[in-house]
Amino acid sequence: MTRQTDADQARSEALVTEKVLASFARTPDERLREVMDAVVRHLHALIREVRLTEAEWEAAVRFLTRAGHITTDTRQEFILLSDVLGASMLTIGVNHPVHGQATEATVFGPFFVADSPRVEPGGDITGGAAGEPCRVSGTVTDAEGKPVAGARIEVWEADEDGHYDVQYGDGRTAGRAHLFTDAEGRYCFWGVTPAPYPIPHDGPVGDLLAATGRSPMRAAHLHFMVTAPGLRRLVTHIFVEGDELLARDAVFGVKESLIKPFTRHPPTDPAPDGREPATTWTDVVFDIVLAPERI
Amino acid sequence: MTRQTDADQARSEALVTEKVLASFARTPDERLREVMDAVVRHLHALIREVRLTEAEWEAAVRFLTRAGHITTDTRQEFILLSDVLGASMLTIGVNHPVHGQATEATVFGPFFVADSPRVEPGGDITGGAAGEPCRVSGTVTDAEGKPVAGARIEVWEADEDGHYDVQYGDGRTAGRAHLFTDAEGRYCFWGVTPAPYPIPHDGPVGDLLAATGRSPMRAAHLHFMVTAPGLRRLVTHIFVEGDELLARDAVFGVKESLIKPFTRHPPTDPAPDGREPATTWTDVVFDIVLAPERI
Repeated sequence: MTRQTDADQARSEALVTEKVLASFARTPDERLREVMDAVVRHLHALIREVRLTEAEWEAAVRFLTRAGHITTDTRQEFILLSDVLGASMLTIGVNHPVHGQATEATVFGPFFVADSPRVEPGGDITGGAAGEPCRVSGTVTDAEGKPVAGARIEVWEADEDGHYDVQYGDGRTAGRAHLFTDAEGRYCFWGVTPAPYPIPHDGPVGDLLAATGRSPMRAAHLHFMVTAPGLRRLVTHIFVEGDELLARDAVFGVKESLIKPFTRHPPTDPAPDGREPATTWTDVVFDIVLAPERI
Repeated sequence: MTRQTDADQARSEALVTEKVLASFARTPDERLREVMDAVVRHLHALIREVRLTEAEWEAAVRFLTRAGHITTDTRQEFILLSDVLGASMLTIGVNHPVHGQATEATVFGPFFVADSPRVEPGGDITGGAAGEPCRVSGTVTDAEGKPVAGARIEVWEADEDGHYDVQYGDGRTAGRAHLFTDAEGRYCFWGVTPAPYPIPHDGPVGDLLAATGRSPMRAAHLHFMVTAPGLRRLVTHIFVEGDELLARDAVFGVKESLIKPFTRHPPTDPAPDGREPATTWTDVVFDIVLAPERI
């Protein structure tokens, strides 16, 4: 009775992969065939490389099952999983190559809501969200430096406790709005100074972070989505210079070019628009460059 | 304004992967660190290779969400997904290398139930399950050919309509039992001739099979789980020689060594144990060889 050789074993494992690839070979849609072929090859390479045990396979099935069961209309554990594995940022990187001086993209996140209120230039987006006042201003230009008038800017952010309005579950709208650039491509609004917060971590993704010694905290940030006819839609954040979480953002969303200085002012400093906040306040400048639609 | 080079793009994509790998580098459990490192590398390689679009990423999130939502205590869509991607069979292959003449393993499937009824040698496991009578007999030996007395054999199978007892949802027990080998390592029971059936295909895995032109049918089979002290637990099936589905079993469970001739007899043929079935009946011999516990 002989133990089979390593070569026999490798051959028998390769045969499984060949059979599965063959089963997808007649997929009518060429792109789906290409993707499934790659899914099978990389999944099988992973299993072979780590010599996945049956107990680990069962743990993976339980993990995905829990992720599915905790997912609702307002809680998306599979997006969180993609985020903490860096799959979201890599997909963004693949789809949004750096284009000259065009502003870089980052993760969309799960907290955008359509039909936000409109504010006028210089208006207030907080809707009562608690936090230190923050004046955000800048320009939107195209890749040739030409100002973009009438660009639509959606902004959304958490309050000083790290919660988005939708997380309160009471129907409030706060810390989100849209506005338009003026004829010179300028925009300005008041929000709150961004605060760090944890991604939802009471589910399997939180358990994974805990087991791997990772923090669920996101670096403080303010979300932007900017659209204008003929230009590429930009989904991004700005981050706060000096935030100690910049180097260990739980979803890998930080890009150097998106870190901005938020200058803190005493209450006695009047703002450029004449406002006199009762507390300290910050201001930040974010000049946005949109890439052409086709690059 | 310059378009970045392909090398710049490749570098920026590689940087995402490096950051994610670094985030898992301090995982206290060495094996978990090893597995997560491999998960990240293979997942990122997949995304880069296929240049995954954002729409495809969203479709993947929706697919996993649907799989989670259809999964219950009695319906496991993630196991089905693993099965149709060949991940289940590959994991079995990694964990159960061929060992000389030891009987090969195949997928466990989702229909095993603990605490099955015990039948005596030559007994009937059908419990009223519809189908053509089938006499199954053989021996259990160890790798040196020595008979194994008192080996526990669990058997379970679908009825002629392709349904397991638990799929009827009425609490019936049928087509499953356990028995023990005699002093010479022999066993024998009556079941029904295995019939082909589809895996559950009314969920996202069924949609994937349809979109890729694959059939959800499994080749006809009869499940075995065999245990004996000091020997390696064996989970396997036997398949029916001549079944046209052998080459395209939906879960890739077929191994050449597990295909057995089921000989069909007219009702006028008495069985070796003197039974006289009222219909045609089949018989099959399955000699089982258990590997040592440590190989």
